Amino acid sequence: MMGRNLARNFARNGYTVAVHNRTAAKARALVDEFGQEGEFVLAETAEDFVAALERPRRLVVMVKAGEPTDAVIQEFAPLLEPGDMIVDGGNAHFADTRRRERELREQGIHFVGTGVSGGEEGALNGPSIMPGGSKESYDALGPMLEKISAKAADGSPCTAHIGPDGAGHFVKMVHNGIEYADMQLIAEAYQLLREVAGYSPAEIADIFRTWNTGRLDSYLIEITAEVLAHVDAATGEPFVDVVQDQAEQKGTGRWTVQIALDLGVPVSGIAEAVFARSVSGHKDLRDASRGLAGPKAEPLAKNEAAAFADQVEQALYASKIVSYTQGFHEIAAGSEEYGWGIDLGAVSAIWRGGCIIRAAFLDRIRAAYDARADLPSLLADEGFAREIGEAQDDWRAVLVAATRQGVPAPGFAAALAYYDALRADRLPAALTQGQRDYFGAHTYRRTDREGSFHTLWGGDRSEVSA
Amino acid sequence: MMGRNLARNFARNGYTVAVHNRTAAKARALVDEFGQEGEFVLAETAEDFVAALERPRRLVVMVKAGEPTDAVIQEFAPLLEPGDMIVDGGNAHFADTRRRERELREQGIHFVGTGVSGGEEGALNGPSIMPGGSKESYDALGPMLEKISAKAADGSPCTAHIGPDGAGHFVKMVHNGIEYADMQLIAEAYQLLREVAGYSPAEIADIFRTWNTGRLDSYLIEITAEVLAHVDAATGEPFVDVVQDQAEQKGTGRWTVQIALDLGVPVSGIAEAVFARSVSGHKDLRDASRGLAGPKAEPLAKNEAAAFADQVEQALYASKIVSYTQGFHEIAAGSEEYGWGIDLGAVSAIWRGGCIIRAAFLDRIRAAYDARADLPSLLADEGFAREIGEAQDDWRAVLVAATRQGVPAPGFAAALAYYDALRADRLPAALTQGQRDYFGAHTYRRTDREGSFHTLWGGDRSEVSA
Repeated sequence: MMGRNLARNFARNGYTVAVHNRTAAKARALVDEFGQEGEFVLAETAEDFVAALERPRRLVVMVKAGEPTDAVIQEFAPLLEPGDMIVDGGNAHFADTRRRERELREQGIHFVGTGVSGGEEGALNGPSIMPGGSKESYDALGPMLEKISAKAADGSPCTAHIGPDGAGHFVKMVHNGIEYADMQLIAEAYQLLREVAGYSPAEIADIFRTWNTGRLDSYLIEITAEVLAHVDAATGEPFVDVVQDQAEQKGTGRWTVQIALDLGVPVSGIAEAVFARSVSGHKDLRDASRGLAGPKAEPLAKNEAAAFADQVEQALYASKIVSYTQGFHEIAAGSEEYGWGIDLGAVSAIWRGGCIIRAAFLDRIRAAYDARADLPSLLADEGFAREIGEAQDDWRAVLVAATRQGVPAPGFAAALAYYDALRADRLPAALTQGQRDYFGAHTYRRTDREGSFHTLWGGDRSEVSA
Repeated sequence: MMGRNLARNFARNGYTVAVHNRTAAKARALVDEFGQEGEFVLAETAEDFVAALERPRRLVVMVKAGEPTDAVIQEFAPLLEPGDMIVDGGNAHFADTRRRERELREQGIHFVGTGVSGGEEGALNGPSIMPGGSKESYDALGPMLEKISAKAADGSPCTAHIGPDGAGHFVKMVHNGIEYADMQLIAEAYQLLREVAGYSPAEIADIFRTWNTGRLDSYLIEITAEVLAHVDAATGEPFVDVVQDQAEQKGTGRWTVQIALDLGVPVSGIAEAVFARSVSGHKDLRDASRGLAGPKAEPLAKNEAAAFADQVEQALYASKIVSYTQGFHEIAAGSEEYGWGIDLGAVSAIWRGGCIIRAAFLDRIRAAYDARADLPSLLADEGFAREIGEAQDDWRAVLVAATRQGVPAPGFAAALAYYDALRADRLPAALTQGQRDYFGAHTYRRTDREGSFHTLWGGDRSEVSA
């Protein structure tokens, strides 16, 4: 579906599109159904397909990530010539993209690992596109991607050259990790409004609609209101109450956390979002835990509920700042590790349209990086620091309510702990270092002079230089 | 150092130990210094070393995990005969151990990936030993390991055959992940006693000493008291105040989280422990965040501090139950995935002595699994469920104080959120599924009938079977 819609998007924008599928009938069905939208060339064989393309050839591959991608490359690479390019628009792991780019580069073929976000709808009407690969490949491909991509409110295209080899897929991976965090924070806000404030799904839909007119204005907030307002036709119940509460996941959220761990970047908000889905899916553990004791809690009085909803908006916004801080930290660390030179302002700019996390908020992030490209953290931006500082009392109040009433809010809690840890004068990591020196002679540094030290814990407890 | 101490441990227990090091002088130094402790045979070359061993040969390799291990295997495997065994006592990744076991099995050589915990001290005087590999290898090796291992309070050896191929290293990895979580929870308890209750490090040392006489009785609580009571000779300040508050880490905590993500197991407590170390080490981010707004908070009055300390004990104990629940869940999931048949009760039994996380608590876990080997979760054990239920009010009170006073407690918070999520009747994962169906047509299940469904969000919003 994604490939089909991308092909239609190119055709609608005036490009002649050769289409090919392993199952020839599928490609034919596309042309039969949508042939009037533009110029399509139906290619039944790989050879026909390659012969139909203008040089340098630009093959866009949309298959399942993993072995199917390698299979397609093995089939087509021998038919290509130096200067041609293979564009992988799937959700590949960036390490695979690095390997494929390296292997094809030896043949003179450009491999362009490209993140595409926006779902089927976005693929057709304008996605956010995150291409990696060589500069030359972007010279030939970029203008086309700029044409089919979404446009931000200011008219600029939601695509840009992200950086060499795996940079595009890396950025798409973190996009998805942030999407997990955004969705989890929204889920927690909903649950608190429901259980602490006692609002109905329809009332909460209205609250989200109001939020969507302010600084939280975003696609995910918008569709949350739609989902919460929806009534199940079969039962007359709120739709959200008839859906099984076991969330599913694909690989990219998990990868975002795994790679962050390799890079030493704390992404606790994204991790809690991934874990929350996984907890929800463990029916056996949940069934075994139903009887566990919880607090006796009463919903708020009606006249307190509206004030609480305002506090939840603050908590959601503050936690969202932390998620993006962590996600952009990961992109910066990846860029540093692999020498990609990623422009973080450009990344936020191309996420403003087309993709799932598109939001007014991203304009703010772009402005922060435009003002200071080497910003060590979004929290170091004056504007975000002020806003999160103003939100913190309400953020704490919401977490106090969640804690007391037994409503799980792992995303809000992880975000606040990250905020409080970063601003702490001293962390108990000093004790951790002392323990590590005690049981494993791992040594420690001192605050008052250079060097590594070890205390002779088993002896006279004097200190030695290590 | 670990290898040297293991060699001495074997020799002290009456085994003749051939010793070999790439740098012959190192092996000679061991024999020169400790030769009177038992029978050593100094082997300068690989050939001499192999020739010196009784058959079946039992080579114990203690080198850095990764390429050095492969190098040693490549050097020695050609000199061995079928039935011989190579024991890798380093912290290898279990996937490497699986590969090495498979490769050596083809040559008829047993590869025994073995977790060893207890640091240098444990290696010498009795570690907890977690050997994987074939049953036959344990028949030949087990009695020796049982002799040199630590003994639990009831006299039983702290080693057992964990399971085939990578099982031993997998269990050691999770041991280390749990160790990270234990240390983080202790660090949070310390920080809260210091900043909320206003206790000095020496006073907190006394509190930990008291806790160590109760259900928290453990090696880590014991050494925490020692570290906190220690006064820096150079400055006269509490030692913990002169140590840099940037914690370091090696790979196993990180791996525990990465593998848990692959297995779909929520290990939020362990993840927060890994992230807390990583946050502490990001000096640049911390420096950039010093000015962020925090709450105005006052320490408790002296007469409230003691009651708060009791609440912290409850919070620490409850969070510890969650960490172990998560860790044992990961072992169960790994065992299921790789067909290892790991006996969770036996794992807890061999952690009762020798290793870093040794604790009275592990007897309780063993009892829980002895009572019911297929326990789906430690929280499903009646005793743990009762204790955590009794602790929950205080646990919440401690988190409310941490939240209000701006003391980061990510481990306590993640543990409580896990607890509250598992016991929830409904989770907002239903909303997440609704969003995923809205933007990606990912479908959802219903609570009232079987099947997968999709709502035509862009159309008339009727529901179709998927």
